Amino acid sequence: MKVSARNRFNGRVASIVPGAVNALVEVALAGGDRLVAVVTLDSIASLGLAEGGEVVALVKAPWVMLMAADEPLKLSARNQLRGVVRAVQSGPVNAEVSLQLPGGSLITALVTREAVAELGLTPGAEAVAVVKSSQVILGVPA
Amino acid sequence: MKVSARNRFNGRVASIVPGAVNALVEVALAGGDRLVAVVTLDSIASLGLAEGGEVVALVKAPWVMLMAADEPLKLSARNQLRGVVRAVQSGPVNAEVSLQLPGGSLITALVTREAVAELGLTPGAEAVAVVKSSQVILGVPA
Amino acid sequence: MKVSARNRFNGRVASIVPGAVNALVEVALAGGDRLVAVVTLDSIASLGLAEGGEVVALVKAPWVMLMAADEPLKLSARNQLRGVVRAVQSGPVNAEVSLQLPGGSLITALVTREAVAELGLTPGAEAVAVVKSSQVILGVPA
Repeated sequence: MKVSARNRFNGRVASIVPGAVNALVEVALAGGDRLVAVVTLDSIASLGLAEGGEVVALVKAPWVMLMAADEPLKLSARNQLRGVVRAVQSGPVNAEVSLQLPGGSLITALVTREAVAELGLTPGAEAVAVVKSSQVILGVPA
Repeated sequence: MKVSARNRFNGRVASIVPGAVNALVEVALAGGDRLVAVVTLDSIASLGLAEGGEVVALVKAPWVMLMAADEPLKLSARNQLRGVVRAVQSGPVNAEVSLQLPGGSLITALVTREAVAELGLTPGAEAVAVVKSSQVILGVPA
Repeated sequence: MKVSARNRFNGRVASIVPGAVNALVEVALAGGDRLVAVVTLDSIASLGLAEGGEVVALVKAPWVMLMAADEPLKLSARNQLRGVVRAVQSGPVNAEVSLQLPGGSLITALVTREAVAELGLTPGAEAVAVVKSSQVILGVPA
């Protein structure tokens, strides 16, 4: 699939909880990891999303925040995915950090180099990837 | 106008569809391109937005995703703007890519250099700029 | 606190205005600056947010837009925080710009170097940091 988003998760719709305007869609990724997205009811209809259906979840790396694994903080963000740092690619200001989740999925965050140092993000370290559900774009094969 | 957002679209309000809390505002850009924004009803009132009124739509480049033009994928994002690559400015990790839309508007995305290569984003190539409507900020002259 | 977000504001919940699905949470920062976040009612409950309670507001630097202080533009974004530029750290494409708010809090934005020049963002200059309330993540001690 050719999209610029570094995070493209293939999965199946695990559940859809409709609200008045939006719906909460839980996506079960291969390997058992889970991701929650909020999309409009219009999008549920136009994409034909239904439980069990194939879906792609897209998240750009600048939309992912990282948190140290031992940070005693409860967050409002729906997606808090604990994983192990697999790769760190540094530029002069920013760095791309990839975590591997327990089910095998990789999630990549764009953070500052300063954050990489502060959080001790070296390969093998544990960390938590945080993504607001409103930031996740869903897709289906056309 | 002096704002840091690389994308500043001048247009007119084409339609406002109010919900319980938010409203969907469709903006007609010069040249006929269209952009959809979700803002609160409070903002509709405080900005005095009404059909036909002048409005500016602001989108930061890191909030724009790019997709290959031939990608057979339907997305939940409301704004999917097909255009032609006009400029690519590369840094060590990221690149700014500008697409020209059919009506003439330019839209700029900040993506990784890796994505530029994968999607073949060279001047003249077609691509689709994807923006969630919740990511668009609207403004009016004070 | 170890999170990658450059903006971590300690404060207290000043008010909570519940809607059908989401609530608007106003956070009073030390020194009197204020920040508004939209989070789900579920998050209000699971974090145990209540007026007067301690809370952390998190915002990644790429989510912050800057506007010139004299720009005659009214925006739909809820958070428009006027401050004075304290630091500019430039990379080849982007720059991190920190503003100090009247109450003393610092807010950092990731913008392009081009924007730094256009807006005249040198130390001592005034500018406005713009953040959509839907982009703010709230946290409480676990």
